[in-house]
Amino acid sequence: MEVRTSVIEKRLSKVKRVISVASGKGGVGKSLVACSLALSLSKKGYKVGLLDLDLYGPSSHVILGVNDFSFPEEEKGILPYDINKIKFMSIVYFTEDKPAPLRGMDITNVIIELLAITRWEELDYLIIDMPPGIGDETLDVIHLVKKSEFMVVSTPSKVALAAVDKLLKVLKELKLPVVGVVENMKIDDSTLIKDYSKEQGFSYLGSIAFDKNLEGAIGFPEKLMKTGFMNDFDKIITKHL
Amino acid sequence: MEVRTSVIEKRLSKVKRVISVASGKGGVGKSLVACSLALSLSKKGYKVGLLDLDLYGPSSHVILGVNDFSFPEEEKGILPYDINKIKFMSIVYFTEDKPAPLRGMDITNVIIELLAITRWEELDYLIIDMPPGIGDETLDVIHLVKKSEFMVVSTPSKVALAAVDKLLKVLKELKLPVVGVVENMKIDDSTLIKDYSKEQGFSYLGSIAFDKNLEGAIGFPEKLMKTGFMNDFDKIITKHL
Repeated sequence: MEVRTSVIEKRLSKVKRVISVASGKGGVGKSLVACSLALSLSKKGYKVGLLDLDLYGPSSHVILGVNDFSFPEEEKGILPYDINKIKFMSIVYFTEDKPAPLRGMDITNVIIELLAITRWEELDYLIIDMPPGIGDETLDVIHLVKKSEFMVVSTPSKVALAAVDKLLKVLKELKLPVVGVVENMKIDDSTLIKDYSKEQGFSYLGSIAFDKNLEGAIGFPEKLMKTGFMNDFDKIITKHL
Repeated sequence: MEVRTSVIEKRLSKVKRVISVASGKGGVGKSLVACSLALSLSKKGYKVGLLDLDLYGPSSHVILGVNDFSFPEEEKGILPYDINKIKFMSIVYFTEDKPAPLRGMDITNVIIELLAITRWEELDYLIIDMPPGIGDETLDVIHLVKKSEFMVVSTPSKVALAAVDKLLKVLKELKLPVVGVVENMKIDDSTLIKDYSKEQGFSYLGSIAFDKNLEGAIGFPEKLMKTGFMNDFDKIITKHL
C-alpha cells in the first residue's frame, strides 16, 4: 500500500486544490454539486478535473451525459476523458456501468488503482465525488488523498443532518480542512442547517433552492448550466472558492 | 459464521414475512418508507418489528423520535424496544448514535450480532431498513436473512434510477422475491419509474407525492400518520401487502 500511496501523491502533485464533495448520506445532491462545481469552475477559466469515487452509486456520468464506457487511453497510466472541457474519470470505466457489488478490499483496491493510474497533470481544481457516508471508502479516500479539502452537502432535513453531523464530527476529529456546508433542496425558510453550522463552527456556504426543473437537465451539461440550481450554486462558488 | 446463521434462522422462525426496504442509493426516502410501512401495518392490527440495518446512516430512530439509546434489556438475547407498538431494534443502540466509522468485517459482524441476538418472537411482519446500494452490508443481509422479500424505493430521477436498476439486476440474478417498486417524491407526471418497472418485469406498486410538510412530522409518529405522504403510501400498502 505504501508504494501506491507515494504514486498517488506524485499523480496529484500538479493539482493545486482538491475539493472532495461529501455528504453524510446519499440523495442530498452530492453528485450534482460535484458536477456543477466542476462545470462552473471550468467555465470561469480554471483547469478542472472530476473524479467519481462514489463506487456504490456512481452518478457523475449520468449527470454529464456520458454513454461511452470504453476503457480510457493508456500511456504511462490512463488519461482522463475530456467531457465539456473537464478532465473526467470514474469507476464506471472499470465496471462498464454494470452492477458490480464489490466487497471491502476490492473497493479499496479499485480506489487505490484509480488514484494511482490516472494522469491528471496540471489542474487548478480536482473535484472528487465522494462515496456517501463514513464507511470504508470514505476513510480510504481521506487516507489516500492527503491534500483534500471537504465541501459537505446537506438538505434541510433532520434525517440528513443526523448523518451529516456524523461525517463532520469525523472530519473535525481528523483535523481535516472543511470548506463549509452547502444546503441543497431548500423549500422553506428553515434555519436548521445554518444554525447547526454556526453552533459547530463550520462555515455555512449558502443554500440552493429546490429546483423542480432540474431533472430535465440531467445528462445535458449545457442545460444544467442554465438551471435555477446552478444560478444559486454559482453565487456560492464565486463567493467561497 | 455457520453457527450464527442457524441462530439467525431460529430467531426469525416465528416471523411470518420479512420485508426488506431497499434502494439503489440513499436519500430516496427508504427509511421513511420502512418506518411508515411498520407504523401502518401495526395500525392495521398486525404484530410488527422494525430493524434498522442502515449502518452508514441509521435514520429510523430519528423518524420515530427515539432519544433513549440505553442498551436494550438482555435475557437470552436482547429484547427489542417497544416504540408506538412496534418492536424496534437499531444499530444506534450499539453505537449510542456516536459517529462510528466501521470497516468491512466490523460491519458484517455487527449485522450478524444484531440478527443473532434480537428476540423478535412472533411477528406478522419484520420490516428491515436496508443499507443503501449494493455494497457488503446489503449482500450480507441478503445472505443472512433467507426469507426476505424486497420492496425497492426510487425517486423519479434518472440518477436514482441508474442506482436502483443495479440493485434490481442483482436481486433478479439472485432470484430473490421483489414485492415491487415504490416511487417516492413524485413532483410531476413523469412515467420514468413506471415504464422502467414494466419493461424489467417488476411490479410498480404506486407513487407517493412529494410532501413538503413531511419534515415537520419527522420525530413524531402520530403526526407522520396524518401526512400526505402516509395517505399516499397507505393506499399502496392496503393494495399490495
